[in-house]
Amino acid sequence: MTSMADPSETQTPLTALPENAGVDAAVAAARRVIEALLHAGGNSAAEMVQVAERLDQISAHLAEHAPDREERLVDMWRGEGVTRHDPVTGPENAIAPPLHLAGLPDGSVRGTVTLGLAYQGPPGSVHGGVSALLLDHALGVANDWGPGPAGMTGTLTLRYHRVTPLFRELTVVARQVSFSGRKIKTTGEITVDGEVCVSADGLFIDAFIDRPR
Amino acid sequence: MTSMADPSETQTPLTALPENAGVDAAVAAARRVIEALLHAGGNSAAEMVQVAERLDQISAHLAEHAPDREERLVDMWRGEGVTRHDPVTGPENAIAPPLHLAGLPDGSVRGTVTLGLAYQGPPGSVHGGVSALLLDHALGVANDWGPGPAGMTGTLTLRYHRVTPLFRELTVVARQVSFSGRKIKTTGEITVDGEVCVSADGLFIDAFIDRPR
Repeated sequence: MTSMADPSETQTPLTALPENAGVDAAVAAARRVIEALLHAGGNSAAEMVQVAERLDQISAHLAEHAPDREERLVDMWRGEGVTRHDPVTGPENAIAPPLHLAGLPDGSVRGTVTLGLAYQGPPGSVHGGVSALLLDHALGVANDWGPGPAGMTGTLTLRYHRVTPLFRELTVVARQVSFSGRKIKTTGEITVDGEVCVSADGLFIDAFIDRPR
Repeated sequence: MTSMADPSETQTPLTALPENAGVDAAVAAARRVIEALLHAGGNSAAEMVQVAERLDQISAHLAEHAPDREERLVDMWRGEGVTRHDPVTGPENAIAPPLHLAGLPDGSVRGTVTLGLAYQGPPGSVHGGVSALLLDHALGVANDWGPGPAGMTGTLTLRYHRVTPLFRELTVVARQVSFSGRKIKTTGEITVDGEVCVSADGLFIDAFIDRPR
């Protein structure tokens, strides 16, 4: 029991929430397949070829109803709001862990994520490039939430302070530090139990890529 | 027709080649499912829930034969040679595009890769964090191939020169520049048609994480 306000009450979701029950459920199931394939050990080659056939039947079925690439790109970027397909937070992208980020009243963004075998670099540890992927994205979301413009990554510097563990809850935080002219400075870090594993400093440039149409 | 030597003749594969026909085929099929889910547009929610059920049947089947996590980690890191499970080059990891890298006689490493919708950041473009992931890994492989020690990433700086396109062949190169004491300097870049999209400078520290056993 505590008399402090629950900080979750003042958080604003900034990444897509699972809302398309059908697609999001299929993508969540695809994540479990990715993880199960990495955990698999005792299956025979013949069984695995059967698994491949079953998976190919599923992608063939999906392809029957799929629009062509250009049409799909237009649809992906239609409307406002957050993306549903990016490789960090996207509920439609099985590569995404996914990381959910929320905006805090102090201007920072924050989320937690636990990473499994698919994100391994050194033994039992998160791949340094995966930490970079999470932080680059979090800094981008912090720019959307912060007072200044958003923009594209110009320079990103990552410092690795200690090994980032798999299978433990990681906290990802980021905030826009300053902006001047077209230049935006943003910072972030990944921590575990309050200790910094990886920190990032980004210089973003206020620029925009046209949406497909 | 040309009288120049084929550079591929002097390349040494440095990343895992598909050799476990069963697992690797299933993982390749899982990559097609990831991509098909991102391309899907016209499926009903009910159909997608059925897709989720079929995928869950597959992961349940795989889990029946899977060792527990600790045992699997020991097995993953048993023996020498390259990893088969990392999220950049691993033939057993459906998250990996995969990127195949080869060592050249001049001490550099090089590979090509074409990225699809799963790796999208800005519209039609590669996510900046995905470029960071590919480069961090390529720099690590360059350290394995180069004359100095390998080690862990200490600082990684990425510079984004131009947008990196999806659906086009990207070239990833990296090389160990120098080493002194425990510090190793390594550099790399992603190019398209000879133009630099992203460059990376890494400071690596000669350190080692014990393998699970």
